[in-house]
This record gives sequence, C-alpha cells and structure tokens, in this order.
Amino acid sequence: MEYLNHTQPIQAKDFHEGLKLTFEPFTLSKAEIIEFAKQFDPLIFHIDEEAAKKTHFKGLISSGPHIFTLKHRTQWIPIFGHSVIAGMEVNNWKFLKPVYPDQTIYGSVLIESIKKNPEKQYSVVKWRYEFKDVKQEMVQSLEMVVMHYIS
Amino acid sequence: MEYLNHTQPIQAKDFHEGLKLTFEPFTLSKAEIIEFAKQFDPLIFHIDEEAAKKTHFKGLISSGPHIFTLKHRTQWIPIFGHSVIAGMEVNNWKFLKPVYPDQTIYGSVLIESIKKNPEKQYSVVKWRYEFKDVKQEMVQSLEMVVMHYIS
Repeated sequence: MEYLNHTQPIQAKDFHEGLKLTFEPFTLSKAEIIEFAKQFDPLIFHIDEEAAKKTHFKGLISSGPHIFTLKHRTQWIPIFGHSVIAGMEVNNWKFLKPVYPDQTIYGSVLIESIKKNPEKQYSVVKWRYEFKDVKQEMVQSLEMVVMHYIS
Repeated sequence: MEYLNHTQPIQAKDFHEGLKLTFEPFTLSKAEIIEFAKQFDPLIFHIDEEAAKKTHFKGLISSGPHIFTLKHRTQWIPIFGHSVIAGMEVNNWKFLKPVYPDQTIYGSVLIESIKKNPEKQYSVVKWRYEFKDVKQEMVQSLEMVVMHYIS
C-alpha cells in the first residue's frame, strides 16, 4: 500500500511492512532555515548567510533536524500520531548531503518492519524516513522505532 | 578532564576520549513542555494535560527531543559549536523513561571516541549524551557523530 501525500489517519491494525507515505516535493526558504536554526541549532552555517559563504558549504544550509522535524510534525503525526503509545528509539539518522535554501527535496516514510503483539494490543514499528535531492541522491535518512496501540 | 556546567569554548585540539561536560540539574515546566511539543511533537500526551491523564503515562510528559535539543543548544553549541564542520549521524537515541513537568533531570555529554586526522585538520568525534532521573536511572541517551575542525 502506497500513499502519496496522504492526510487522513491510518489505523495501526492496517499497518504492514512496506506501507509507504510519499511526500510532495518541498523546499525550505532561507528565512525558514534561519528561523529554525536560531531556535534549535544555531551553528554559523545555518544562521549567518555571509559567514556561511566562507565555510566549505559555500553558503547557508539547513539544520539536518529541520527536514525530518518538519515532515514528522506536518505529515507523519496527522496520519499515524493518534495510535502512538510511545516513541522508543531513533537510529542511523544520517546527514549525508547539505540542503540549501529553495532546493527541492523528495521525501518518504515507510514501515521497514513491524512486530505485532495483538494480545497486548500493541505493535512495535520501525519507520524509515528518506530524503533525496533532484539527482535522487540521499541527503538524509533515519529509523524511528515507535510503539503503537492497536485499537 | 571533566567540566561542570562549563560555558567557555573548548578547542578541538584539546578534545580527548572521556572529556565530559556535566550539566547542572534542570527541569522542564508544564508550559515549556507544551510549547515545545506544539511546535514539533504535538502528540496528545505532550500537549493536553487532561487527555494525558487518560494515557498509560497518567499525565503530561515531555517530548523526548525536547530534552536533548535544549541542552544541545544552550550548553553544547556555546562550548563546542565553533569548530563544527558538519554533523554526520545520530545513533541509539533511546527514550527510556517518561519525563514529567518539574522532574529534576541530571545530564552530561562526553567524548566517547575520537578519530583525529591532523594532516587534514579534522577530527571525527562520537559524543554521548546521557540524561538520568533522581534515582540515577537513565531516561534518555544518544550518540552524535560530528566532524570538527582542528584549528
């Protein structure tokens, strides 16, 4: 089952390996990058355009967590958040390529594995986020282990 | 070398395995928990006190990322942020116990391992954050791999 930019809640009883939500391509503006980083990741190449030009990135880049956090809040939580019992782990969160302002990002999240415990009415789900650039090269990926209530 | 609640920058040339920064014990207020979660992790048990009472947590708890993010921004970046070339990975981020409003948290970050490349003037450093409760039980831990410039 694959969903493109889906917005309706999906019940945990319908979860299965390979269930995938593909996001519409998106960008982060210069102002968005700076605003996020000032609050949470104020490194020079995330908040100061002039100084960033002198780093090896040769310009402003987004904070890595900005990309995941944005999609997690605006797309994952509205669809899958209602059945969360608890977040358990984040693993292999890799920041592979820099993301510049207005650069188009292609992203998705899928169920990599699932352990169901129907007697106790929960599943432990390993979600995998992937973000790629226009060349289809990975810019960021992570795995997130979440316990979901099966209603 | 151990630092308690240190605030001055430490140069990457002085990094070594075991270098540790211990934070002063801290708490998150109900309002802080709700404000952070509304922006970034709006699950019901992070943002709605009444609804949270009906979950297995029996009350409002902080978003896991809130704890790490706060200390990373206010304590790690002022001391170690100036030499960052790039963040590379986050691993084994484990949310082990819930954290309630006004609960005292003890935290630290240390250098777990370091690979120096003096010729190319950089180090790859594995930082380990740990957060414990008053019983000295781990509530959250994570590893963060960062490339630092050796000036």
